[in-house]
Amino acid sequence: MSDQAKFQSAQATIVRNERFIRTAEQLKPALLREEVEPTRLVQMKADSSAMHGWRASREAGIDTLDSRELGKGQSVIADFGDHRVGYVSFEVRPVGSPPDAPLKLKLTFGEMPVEMAVPFSGYDGWISSSWLQEEILFVDVLPGRVSLPRRYSFRYLKLEVLDTSPKYRVSFFNLRCMTVTSADRANVAPFDHADPLLREIDRVSVRTLEDCMQDVYEDGPKRDRRLWLGDLRLQAQANYATFRNDALVKRCLYLFAGVPDDRGRVSANLFVEPQLIADDTYLFDYSLFFTVTLHDYYEATGDGNTLRELWPTARRQVELALERLDDRGIVKDDRTWWSFIDWHESLNKQAPSQAVLIYTLKRAIHLAKAVGCSSGAELERRLAEAEQAALDYLWSPEQGFFVSGEERQVSWATQIWMALAEVLPQQRNQELMKRLLAAQPEIAPTTPYMYHHLVEALLVVGLKKEAVDWMKTYWGGMLKDGADTFWELYDPNNPEFSPYGSPLINSYCHAWSCTPTYLIRHYGL
Amino acid sequence: MSDQAKFQSAQATIVRNERFIRTAEQLKPALLREEVEPTRLVQMKADSSAMHGWRASREAGIDTLDSRELGKGQSVIADFGDHRVGYVSFEVRPVGSPPDAPLKLKLTFGEMPVEMAVPFSGYDGWISSSWLQEEILFVDVLPGRVSLPRRYSFRYLKLEVLDTSPKYRVSFFNLRCMTVTSADRANVAPFDHADPLLREIDRVSVRTLEDCMQDVYEDGPKRDRRLWLGDLRLQAQANYATFRNDALVKRCLYLFAGVPDDRGRVSANLFVEPQLIADDTYLFDYSLFFTVTLHDYYEATGDGNTLRELWPTARRQVELALERLDDRGIVKDDRTWWSFIDWHESLNKQAPSQAVLIYTLKRAIHLAKAVGCSSGAELERRLAEAEQAALDYLWSPEQGFFVSGEERQVSWATQIWMALAEVLPQQRNQELMKRLLAAQPEIAPTTPYMYHHLVEALLVVGLKKEAVDWMKTYWGGMLKDGADTFWELYDPNNPEFSPYGSPLINSYCHAWSCTPTYLIRHYGL
Repeated sequence: MSDQAKFQSAQATIVRNERFIRTAEQLKPALLREEVEPTRLVQMKADSSAMHGWRASREAGIDTLDSRELGKGQSVIADFGDHRVGYVSFEVRPVGSPPDAPLKLKLTFGEMPVEMAVPFSGYDGWISSSWLQEEILFVDVLPGRVSLPRRYSFRYLKLEVLDTSPKYRVSFFNLRCMTVTSADRANVAPFDHADPLLREIDRVSVRTLEDCMQDVYEDGPKRDRRLWLGDLRLQAQANYATFRNDALVKRCLYLFAGVPDDRGRVSANLFVEPQLIADDTYLFDYSLFFTVTLHDYYEATGDGNTLRELWPTARRQVELALERLDDRGIVKDDRTWWSFIDWHESLNKQAPSQAVLIYTLKRAIHLAKAVGCSSGAELERRLAEAEQAALDYLWSPEQGFFVSGEERQVSWATQIWMALAEVLPQQRNQELMKRLLAAQPEIAPTTPYMYHHLVEALLVVGLKKEAVDWMKTYWGGMLKDGADTFWELYDPNNPEFSPYGSPLINSYCHAWSCTPTYLIRHYGL
Repeated sequence: MSDQAKFQSAQATIVRNERFIRTAEQLKPALLREEVEPTRLVQMKADSSAMHGWRASREAGIDTLDSRELGKGQSVIADFGDHRVGYVSFEVRPVGSPPDAPLKLKLTFGEMPVEMAVPFSGYDGWISSSWLQEEILFVDVLPGRVSLPRRYSFRYLKLEVLDTSPKYRVSFFNLRCMTVTSADRANVAPFDHADPLLREIDRVSVRTLEDCMQDVYEDGPKRDRRLWLGDLRLQAQANYATFRNDALVKRCLYLFAGVPDDRGRVSANLFVEPQLIADDTYLFDYSLFFTVTLHDYYEATGDGNTLRELWPTARRQVELALERLDDRGIVKDDRTWWSFIDWHESLNKQAPSQAVLIYTLKRAIHLAKAVGCSSGAELERRLAEAEQAALDYLWSPEQGFFVSGEERQVSWATQIWMALAEVLPQQRNQELMKRLLAAQPEIAPTTPYMYHHLVEALLVVGLKKEAVDWMKTYWGGMLKDGADTFWELYDPNNPEFSPYGSPLINSYCHAWSCTPTYLIRHYGL
């Protein structure tokens, strides 16, 4: 998920379940730490063929850093060799006369070359500039050791001397990053595949997930850093195929279940520091993904105790979603709701949300049976109604597509989610996806999140070759464009796209992009 | 003293005296701490009659701070009621939705209104901008408590919200400063005087000294922060009349004596963090002031042990100065030396330095006698020669002034130091000062440091009324112009003067300005 400032806030009354919160607290992971060093010094060069117009180019070996003497206005960029999430420290020593004034430094952290090359001061996007990773700091006593208290998400670090005095310069030593993650690489099965591109996509997916796994499954370690339900669901799926930190999934489920509103609805995302707070943002699809995530967790672990404890919360999300159905059995599309589905200004959310509900109902029914709950039969009846309503009112036989909203919009998102929800029988479902790929409606996927669902839908309907092709094109495209970890946003046809007004603020290691490892390993691609 | 970047550096070999350094270390004071709160909120208003064109104006009571909610681009200025040196802390709490982005704050500390009103970004002076007291910081977790690790010297603090997010604003609580000083107010005798202006000048002098007394006698707590010999001499004099932290004077003398160069010369200033380092700046007059400061310390304390230990260092400064005398017995004025005397571009330093040498010789002879050293007779002979040389070669009978340098410059500084050195007999000495005040040569005092010597010279020659008048005009002028503590720089005829190119970087609590309390109390004004 991404920053949600576009979603309106609802004043919600939170009903805390302290037992659930305690359970979540007990599951808080100890983070694994590893000290890493930069690998080289780089310069950023303008290159119109490179992503955002900038390319990192080797300037010197990292062993030359110690001997570099920087005066006022001089800078150096260290390349840490790969995406890193952690805490940075270094020593700084004066060269020349004893320092007769403090050292004023600016540090700029970047996941991508553009963040080193384009000044943050020009940023004027609509989410907070406070996400841009920079520090201005003073060192009063030299030589000195600087240990920055904040965590950064970066590959490149620019050390810039804003001022010293005419009497001295400085050199930097022992530049390090202490990385943190709750993902244990030792648990990941080696992945051997004949196709080197799939191997590389898998490797970078795993790195992406690793760097997003912290105290919770974070959205993006650079920006947002919170726990979002839609992303949790995908991260958990990737986790079952790789790191198997299932306790972290359990922890996140208990966190969401710990702070529902007074109707029992779970929030789209949580703040966990300084204390657990449910954000005042509720999304139709994300609330339902609580139920889906619990389903997947139970499938992966067989943990019946957790299922029994959290089933009421899971069932409640379905009940609340069903309350949104109109007389026809279709999700009401008015101004009182928000559903995410994808970042697209013009995307109508009605039909894909109907599909998400159907998708969830099928999994809720499975859980009801597992838990021995009598509501299973009722849920089956509602599922049948919702599916029939979708066929009756959202299916356009003339077009061969599902349509959404008053204007009967034909979007990729609608077909993809209807395919995932398996509303049509298998053969017709496959034809739907074939027709989608052939027709290429204008309202297309914009995010890795939506591309993930496209690829999975193709796999669900049996179009394995097309699924692999799309994955290679999209995630392989990110690799070609220099991804160390997979990005929050990538539109091959519009590489400068940012829903926030600047690529500087985009997150380049983002949970919802980590799914190829799940798709590859789970579906045996 | 002030920043010395204008003085050339000499490569010096330091010969450490570890015993002296240990003695100094053992005398390191425990700092007294006091928590102070701001007293009101202010705005800075443009006012051409105010110092630097800005005046602080009450905006609201400090009790309204808690309820103020600041969003992006908003700020508030807290007035701490008086000059403060210490550590600042506050709490910051979010208002609105849970904070979905870090808080980015800018803090600006100012001793004077101009520092709140004129952006530091425009500073382009010739000493380091790193002295400008500002911080940009991020608060990732809200509510949060911020305890800034650096010490600031200020009265005003601007809290400026650079960014939050559209979803929240912030309020500030429990804004505090933990002040630090090694000066104990309980030791200062109450000062009762019929003249309210003298009472106020005394009070502000004492405050100035108090805020400069830290681990050492600092130059200025905002800028420089080091131990300078010329300032130490004056602070010690003021200290004997007030706080009586004589151990701190002793500590500073041992610090200087601990790191002479291989010729035995003491540096003009010392760095004490992270370890004791002699700066590579040597000044003719400042080195001699080691001897003068030891003399004054012995006079004030009768501490014969310290005198005996440090006498060789004190004597050595005089010997080295005598080596600079030419065949005539006059201080050589060539390109190989630096003497401070005063901040004045055109001031020739020869004659005032000759006077400083004579002034010092008289005190060295006193010390030689006290310590029972046989060199006293030799010093008396050299004194007689130096005085006679001054009369023979620097005295201009036609003008009735001492002249300096090849161009026979007549300056205030020369006459003042000759008067202090008492080269002329008492009556002629008084006439010299009267003539000076009447003639007003063009090369005039520019700093409080030189004005101090002017006032003391008037007292030495018996012109008490003139001394008081000058003190009231000069230090009283600073008070009228809004001084909470006395300033590094003040030229009533040129209030914007800064030797650094901007009043933003000037220090407004400066050691060499604290002397009126000494002059008033010592001379019983």
